[in-house]
Amino acid sequence: MTWVEVDDDSGFGMDNLPYGVFSRPGELPRVGVAIGSFVLDLAGLSADGLIENNRWFAAGSLNGFMVAGRAAWQANRARITELLSDETFRDRVEPHLIPLTTVELLRPIEVADYVDFFSSPDHAVNTSKIFRPNAPAPAPNWRSLPVAYHGRAGTIYASGAPVVRPCGQRKVDSRLAYGPCLKLDYEAEVGFVAGVPSAPGTRVPTAAFADHVFGFLLVNDWSARDIQSWESQPLGPFLAKSFATSISPWVVPLAALEAARIPQPPQDPAPLSYLEMNEDWGLDLTLEVLINDQVVATPPFSRMYWTSPQQLAHATVNGAPLRTGDLFASGTVSGPERTDRGCMLELTWNGRDPIDLPDGTKRTFLEDGDTVTIRATAPGLSGSRISLGEVTGTVLPANP
Amino acid sequence: MTWVEVDDDSGFGMDNLPYGVFSRPGELPRVGVAIGSFVLDLAGLSADGLIENNRWFAAGSLNGFMVAGRAAWQANRARITELLSDETFRDRVEPHLIPLTTVELLRPIEVADYVDFFSSPDHAVNTSKIFRPNAPAPAPNWRSLPVAYHGRAGTIYASGAPVVRPCGQRKVDSRLAYGPCLKLDYEAEVGFVAGVPSAPGTRVPTAAFADHVFGFLLVNDWSARDIQSWESQPLGPFLAKSFATSISPWVVPLAALEAARIPQPPQDPAPLSYLEMNEDWGLDLTLEVLINDQVVATPPFSRMYWTSPQQLAHATVNGAPLRTGDLFASGTVSGPERTDRGCMLELTWNGRDPIDLPDGTKRTFLEDGDTVTIRATAPGLSGSRISLGEVTGTVLPANP
Repeated sequence: MTWVEVDDDSGFGMDNLPYGVFSRPGELPRVGVAIGSFVLDLAGLSADGLIENNRWFAAGSLNGFMVAGRAAWQANRARITELLSDETFRDRVEPHLIPLTTVELLRPIEVADYVDFFSSPDHAVNTSKIFRPNAPAPAPNWRSLPVAYHGRAGTIYASGAPVVRPCGQRKVDSRLAYGPCLKLDYEAEVGFVAGVPSAPGTRVPTAAFADHVFGFLLVNDWSARDIQSWESQPLGPFLAKSFATSISPWVVPLAALEAARIPQPPQDPAPLSYLEMNEDWGLDLTLEVLINDQVVATPPFSRMYWTSPQQLAHATVNGAPLRTGDLFASGTVSGPERTDRGCMLELTWNGRDPIDLPDGTKRTFLEDGDTVTIRATAPGLSGSRISLGEVTGTVLPANP
Repeated sequence: MTWVEVDDDSGFGMDNLPYGVFSRPGELPRVGVAIGSFVLDLAGLSADGLIENNRWFAAGSLNGFMVAGRAAWQANRARITELLSDETFRDRVEPHLIPLTTVELLRPIEVADYVDFFSSPDHAVNTSKIFRPNAPAPAPNWRSLPVAYHGRAGTIYASGAPVVRPCGQRKVDSRLAYGPCLKLDYEAEVGFVAGVPSAPGTRVPTAAFADHVFGFLLVNDWSARDIQSWESQPLGPFLAKSFATSISPWVVPLAALEAARIPQPPQDPAPLSYLEMNEDWGLDLTLEVLINDQVVATPPFSRMYWTSPQQLAHATVNGAPLRTGDLFASGTVSGPERTDRGCMLELTWNGRDPIDLPDGTKRTFLEDGDTVTIRATAPGLSGSRISLGEVTGTVLPANP
């Protein structure tokens, strides 16, 4: 299917072709597509006249290409598929294949606004029981609307960027304290990115999802649980989230996820009309969460109660327009089993039940030096699995 | 003091000199300073070599100038003061004075992230009693930290932009409904804008406020109360706020607010060390809220419990960096008297007690066609009052 040597298990075969931004020492950042163990340099290809359009790809983010819209995305994907499969292009294309080991992968998008949902039923119930033991779990509104809040766009970092342990206030028993977070956590999430803007005062119905959304990526919504439980009433989480959010380098286009689309779980009560779905937009993604290279959970995205098109329709139903680069994250992906849980708050039940790592150590929350990695795969069109890559980050000690 | 003819009561004399962005038909937007009934065209002045630096001012936002930093802000203010006071410059400067009646005032800044605080004690108590009648008022954390949340940066509009009534979900008794918001409200707030960024992982202590913050402006944080009361648990307000926020066209530099600085109200308990203040940063601003040109409230900013430097120190204590264009709003400004209340939720006690307007009509919440205007003045250095200008917007009917 391609003249490029691609390992069948790489997850980056011809049915994936995700977009990212890379740089090499002394060279400007530019847009590329992952194929096997290479990045295909789209800026180079377009400079050589092999693809449209150099302005999209000789750039430090995907935003210029994302705004171009669905027809441009489809045409570019078709052309890249042609270039990589037709042996007659090999001589001209091969010089633009760069080994991934020689590049740095950067944050792929300029983030406009960042919205974080809360769409896993297991996560909603677990966090409710932990944080609000006397309240109904999940909250009464949870099955009527995809609950969400705005996060901080300015602290969305590339995968690999270190995460400095945040400082802040907490209340322990009746004593107020300030200092480094004692309950540092990750959240394994999946996000989607808007490419095509919408007009103020209009809505993006569920059926128009693919006209606006460019692709999916992985999100680690780092969280400070002791700060969160003290600050969050009544206006929601703020500093507990705003210190860092990490995103994966590859944005997987919607076209690559066709084989991963499955029926969503049943919804009861029936959603209001503006949240009705006419297509399957559940996604059969399998996540893996690793601490120091040891798998601690495998959260199933297929259980998410609200689909991505429902989330987008909800976020715009009040007339809030989309901008290119708007990022929408799913909320922590969890499941009914302990090994499904997508954050340590749930895994250790807020520290009550430490987890044992294969290396013989225990964890209640993250320790300085811990590296957290989130990976995901999905069924690909060819029957193999495609990879969403990974998002990783290492915890550094708090600044004094 | 100036050779420009300035009405003493204009609020835009030599002790103010706020910055904004304006355009004229067929001309590019550019930066100007308000003086009397004129805008002083800084792009024109700099093109003529009368001030540094054309790159800052031949621009569609203040961001390029804001990032230049405190020394540049001071030097530019000093030079403009010289040009407008020294008669010998009159011939060269006068051509750059443009009547305000002939220009359109635009949104002055490109907003990076938008944070909204909740720092009025009266507003915190009133909203708590209204929304959470069985909870302590204010919430237990309120006197320990400046509660805040992130709003949507992409829906921050210029003063004068119409506000389309949002649609959304609400729950009335036990019935779920979808439709145009029935409890549309404004919130009278004061905001400040960051100019100089800070580094990830570092903090901006209260004493460094003036090294980062460029100036103050007025904010109307439009709110949909029926949507808000249903959606906000547990992650805070989302669609109830994200449809629109309006900001005033003039950004008043810190230097113009020296005479307005007063001691803040006493804080009990004593703030944690990272929130300690060594300077007075209460602000003696008087706000006026008008519906259809009729004053409905005069909220006193002097009662705000948390100062702007405390808000900024809190927002960055977890290492979240500042970006140029970050906007921080105070939260609704209210006071103990009914005429002090900065939103209709409080004025009408969530619709229970309608207000009578001088034109003989009543309001529980905003009606289509209503125009809301927020103004503010402050003591100026010369003994007169300076104006923060106004932020205004008219409610349009919901889109079907």
